[in-house]
Amino acid sequence: MSTFMLRDATLLTMNDERPLLRGNLLVQRGVITAVGGRFDAPDGTPVIDCNGDYVMPGVVQTHVHLCQVLFRHEAEGLPLVGWLTQRIFPLEAAHDEASIRASAELGIAELLLSGTTCLLDMGTVHHTEQVVQAIADSGIRAAFGKAMMDLPGDAPAGLRETTQASIDGSLELAHHWHGALDDRIRYAFAPRWVLSCTAELQQELARQSREHGYLIHTHAAEHLGEIAEVERRHGARNVAVLHELGLCTERSVFAHCVHLDDHERQLLAATGTSVAHCPSANLKLGSGICDLPALLRAGVNVGIGADGAPCNNGLDGLVEMRLAHLLQQMAAGPGSVRPRDVLHMATRGGAKALGWENRIGQLMPGFDADIVRLRRDDFRLGLGSDPWTEIVTCGTRDLVRSVWVRGEQLVDSGQLTRLDHAWLRANGREQLQAVLRRAFDEERVLG
Amino acid sequence: MSTFMLRDATLLTMNDERPLLRGNLLVQRGVITAVGGRFDAPDGTPVIDCNGDYVMPGVVQTHVHLCQVLFRHEAEGLPLVGWLTQRIFPLEAAHDEASIRASAELGIAELLLSGTTCLLDMGTVHHTEQVVQAIADSGIRAAFGKAMMDLPGDAPAGLRETTQASIDGSLELAHHWHGALDDRIRYAFAPRWVLSCTAELQQELARQSREHGYLIHTHAAEHLGEIAEVERRHGARNVAVLHELGLCTERSVFAHCVHLDDHERQLLAATGTSVAHCPSANLKLGSGICDLPALLRAGVNVGIGADGAPCNNGLDGLVEMRLAHLLQQMAAGPGSVRPRDVLHMATRGGAKALGWENRIGQLMPGFDADIVRLRRDDFRLGLGSDPWTEIVTCGTRDLVRSVWVRGEQLVDSGQLTRLDHAWLRANGREQLQAVLRRAFDEERVLG
Repeated sequence: MSTFMLRDATLLTMNDERPLLRGNLLVQRGVITAVGGRFDAPDGTPVIDCNGDYVMPGVVQTHVHLCQVLFRHEAEGLPLVGWLTQRIFPLEAAHDEASIRASAELGIAELLLSGTTCLLDMGTVHHTEQVVQAIADSGIRAAFGKAMMDLPGDAPAGLRETTQASIDGSLELAHHWHGALDDRIRYAFAPRWVLSCTAELQQELARQSREHGYLIHTHAAEHLGEIAEVERRHGARNVAVLHELGLCTERSVFAHCVHLDDHERQLLAATGTSVAHCPSANLKLGSGICDLPALLRAGVNVGIGADGAPCNNGLDGLVEMRLAHLLQQMAAGPGSVRPRDVLHMATRGGAKALGWENRIGQLMPGFDADIVRLRRDDFRLGLGSDPWTEIVTCGTRDLVRSVWVRGEQLVDSGQLTRLDHAWLRANGREQLQAVLRRAFDEERVLG
Repeated sequence: MSTFMLRDATLLTMNDERPLLRGNLLVQRGVITAVGGRFDAPDGTPVIDCNGDYVMPGVVQTHVHLCQVLFRHEAEGLPLVGWLTQRIFPLEAAHDEASIRASAELGIAELLLSGTTCLLDMGTVHHTEQVVQAIADSGIRAAFGKAMMDLPGDAPAGLRETTQASIDGSLELAHHWHGALDDRIRYAFAPRWVLSCTAELQQELARQSREHGYLIHTHAAEHLGEIAEVERRHGARNVAVLHELGLCTERSVFAHCVHLDDHERQLLAATGTSVAHCPSANLKLGSGICDLPALLRAGVNVGIGADGAPCNNGLDGLVEMRLAHLLQQMAAGPGSVRPRDVLHMATRGGAKALGWENRIGQLMPGFDADIVRLRRDDFRLGLGSDPWTEIVTCGTRDLVRSVWVRGEQLVDSGQLTRLDHAWLRANGREQLQAVLRRAFDEERVLG
């Protein structure tokens, strides 16, 4: 059923002109065809009564790692580099096809249940075809890519490839999947970070991106230690190095950018490079608080992301929005970033980062019906103020009633329609035990 | 039904010796009588099958303002003093009996649904009998008190009382309610802050507290501006001033304590004064990040609190625990405060702050059955690691399945048993409109 009408909704359109409308929303063959006001549904169109519930564009998360979902509580109390080298790299290297598939499915389920309809994923080095197959089968929208690591360093041997193998593997996935399923899936090159990639690799993917329109997705300026190491090796700041390599483009998304100088912000703005803001991960790994107002003032496009489950420890877009707002009230002062700004980042900002700004992120005729319905009969909501404040400052996942991607309903009354919760959990437990055995020779008894 | 057995639970006892047990929990006439292991229920005892679900002591919140719940989204983008004087004081002053009752009931409902079974409340100056009546009727456990403000200052006339009226009003409530309903309710003097109270008032309530055992609940060292003003007026730092007035006692709870020096921390530890840590409010009002590790190192007892709904904007103990943990990973470094430390604060720390440490906060024979059952069939849980990490780092309110206070079930399958959600919401909307009319002459049309 990708043709239906939502009747009597409170529509957060995310348009500049008419941000809030009351009325109906018509979806025909997965595309929004009418927004707001009262009108009759065409004959035979199923009608869903919303009783004033909020309907908004689905959340777009511009930085996640589906392959890490299985490792949610497996890397506690460590700063970025120790977190990666002691726990995450060995665990990623121990994935097989079954375990990475389980991880991706668990992540997609959690994302959908908390209102996220689109994501930008960075995989690990291997088995990325399992991640994209999970994306394809689930119905969610995504850009994805296999992690690229061709510099010898701290990563275990299992995650290191030759430059050529890394590029060939990426291009094979890109050729197969970029624009697939009527452009529900896109490819994003994923050089892990400057410290894991050769200049040759990065320059080549920049060239391929220019030629074929593939996205570029990397980590940048997350932690002071990382930044110092980049400067030591390259004699320049992180974003300046990426720019020099040709990686700052309007197809690029840099996760984190916690510590930038003005010149770096100008480079991002001038090149149209987007930032994926991940406040939970930045706290958990001891990285710091991103200067969001400075990014916005400089004109940089910003999306939000939960990052990996092991550095969050969830994937909930509502949690991430609340924190993005709250941290800035302290860091930059009350009122510095408004709830509405945050909801903009989480929808239109994300859509723009992935090049889908004319297709998702707003409720507009002609846009795909990637939409979320939030219960509004909860007593936290509808008591006053504006919907942006209500959703961003106190929304929780239990408010997510329904989720559609391209008009296909993937969550109904808070339940997954395609994926099986109980099976995912049972399978996840089994696969986690297998990965721990392979990575650390650990026999974990799950209680 | 205050006699029942929970069968096959994963019991987070919060004991030092046996923190985690699997098995049954027996409750007889509201009191826990057996914990852990397999045993048969006495004849005729109802049995609830938990299938391994987590059962833990209910969360104790040591700083909330039930009277402000109605103003949840009514004070955005303001630092502490503007937030109080422009919005909260006029709104509190505009309360009548019906509106404050509605506010308290909305708050209690939200607290119960997110797993809080006990709270320390600061009321406003008037109508406090409506707040305590709501507490009494709801079944929740609480210490409460009317706000005391006898110094002419920024507060509107409606919130200022004479010293004598403030003390008399407090004592009348205290005589009536302290220890009421078999000690489910206690009285806590609530001098708002040093800047709103005369020395005479504070010295007198310190005397009354010593004599009768009433608690003392105030705000302290929340914001740098407040601290500077206290120093200007009194020539000493905030906690030192409170100590001089006799307000640092083992019956005292100071909310916030964001900015302290070592001497103040030593005063708190030496006197047994507890701190209510409110991380969301400290961010939202631009106050800062409390140095939690320094408090714990100094030996100060710490509880957690959501503070008022308008500075949070929710009352969810799980949200507050997550943030308390996450902020310290950044501020003091990864691993500095562990999830288990935070869960301890939110249960035993809170119980101790309110003098109920031998009655609640642990699953122990002889303790009251103030307990929470969390769904464990969710795919975020039970995949690995320890339960403290699971609950603190990614718990959300949809996991709260059941809540009991003294063995009485107040939440069943995520639904309130005593309070009516739909009625609370409808009544809340009406009462908010009335308060806005009285406070600001504002006619609010609610969508």
